[in-house]
Amino acid sequence: MTTPSLVALDMEGVLLEEVWLAIASHTGIEKLRLTTRDVSDYDELMRMRLDILNRHGITLADLQSVIAESVKPLPGAVDFLNWIRRRLPVVILSDIFMEFVQPVVHLMEYPTILGNSLTVDPDSGMITKYHIRQRDGKRKAVQALRDIGYTVFAAGDSYNDLTMIKEADAGALFRAPEHISSAHPDIKACSEYGELKDLIQSSLRLPVTA
Amino acid sequence: MTTPSLVALDMEGVLLEEVWLAIASHTGIEKLRLTTRDVSDYDELMRMRLDILNRHGITLADLQSVIAESVKPLPGAVDFLNWIRRRLPVVILSDIFMEFVQPVVHLMEYPTILGNSLTVDPDSGMITKYHIRQRDGKRKAVQALRDIGYTVFAAGDSYNDLTMIKEADAGALFRAPEHISSAHPDIKACSEYGELKDLIQSSLRLPVTA
Repeated sequence: MTTPSLVALDMEGVLLEEVWLAIASHTGIEKLRLTTRDVSDYDELMRMRLDILNRHGITLADLQSVIAESVKPLPGAVDFLNWIRRRLPVVILSDIFMEFVQPVVHLMEYPTILGNSLTVDPDSGMITKYHIRQRDGKRKAVQALRDIGYTVFAAGDSYNDLTMIKEADAGALFRAPEHISSAHPDIKACSEYGELKDLIQSSLRLPVTA
Repeated sequence: MTTPSLVALDMEGVLLEEVWLAIASHTGIEKLRLTTRDVSDYDELMRMRLDILNRHGITLADLQSVIAESVKPLPGAVDFLNWIRRRLPVVILSDIFMEFVQPVVHLMEYPTILGNSLTVDPDSGMITKYHIRQRDGKRKAVQALRDIGYTVFAAGDSYNDLTMIKEADAGALFRAPEHISSAHPDIKACSEYGELKDLIQSSLRLPVTA
């Protein structure tokens, strides 16, 4: 008997459209398109983002309206998620701010998301601070789940998913940029939910069903 | 800034009807009504249950049919669950066998359930073994969630929930038998989802909304 299994998934790019891209498109502020692929220091990137929002007078409520209006689950994502959830527990490990997910969490049918958070000035509604729950939090969450007895399969699309995928018993890159997947030939890579299902099924030795 | 919050809930008696009671009613086997309140040694209780199932030739598939037909979420449970899930991550910490949840997990809209599991003889379909993921697993899961940076509120209805409630930052007994709640006057007790929402909201200092 193997230990029970659990699936840990990144959210943006795997289940949900990228939130900052939607904000950039909607506000027309090109600099908000930059990601950790462009500015490798996350704190520098976030300081820049908060500074831009403040200069433009964009509040959290404004961002939540944009997100509610424009950010959608990726096509097929909810079916994929429920396919796993009929079989196994799923935990979403994301660097997203929970305040950004709130307007769209019902569209994903309320998965369990472990993310980060924001502080907002109650008078102005402006975002004043961001809080990272834990440094290398995705990896540490996978480690914690393994410590309580789970065999963990982890999948994500970017740099910040690599340590959790390596910490997990099995895992994959999903729709990762070519330069990330080719730099990590030891990690399986795929781009369709069907392939990811097959990898989950074979890695965790689930019974093969429809 | 406090740490982010998470809610850990027991399942049977809190969100879902009791599975063994449904099996006992449906099969008419009175001894399957016994719980850890009657037989305090869990292993003894489970050996008795498996022995009864085997003597009556009841397979896992039979039990799953009974569960699919007769076990329902408690009235108001899904609304309560989604009320939390719009605000916070929720993890269900249950001693249930995941094979028993599978037929009804969609009725609860796929919460993340950390439970136990069974081994089934592939030829006969009979349950041959049960597997407890971890001794004192509910408490250890709460501890793991606190270790990765969460303030945890935990609620359950019985003896096996006491250690997780005590391990959590805050918690409550929900619809617990009178002799359990009166023996633990230090733990808040309530019996309606509205009261439990209020306790979650005040303990975790959530913004008061509808």
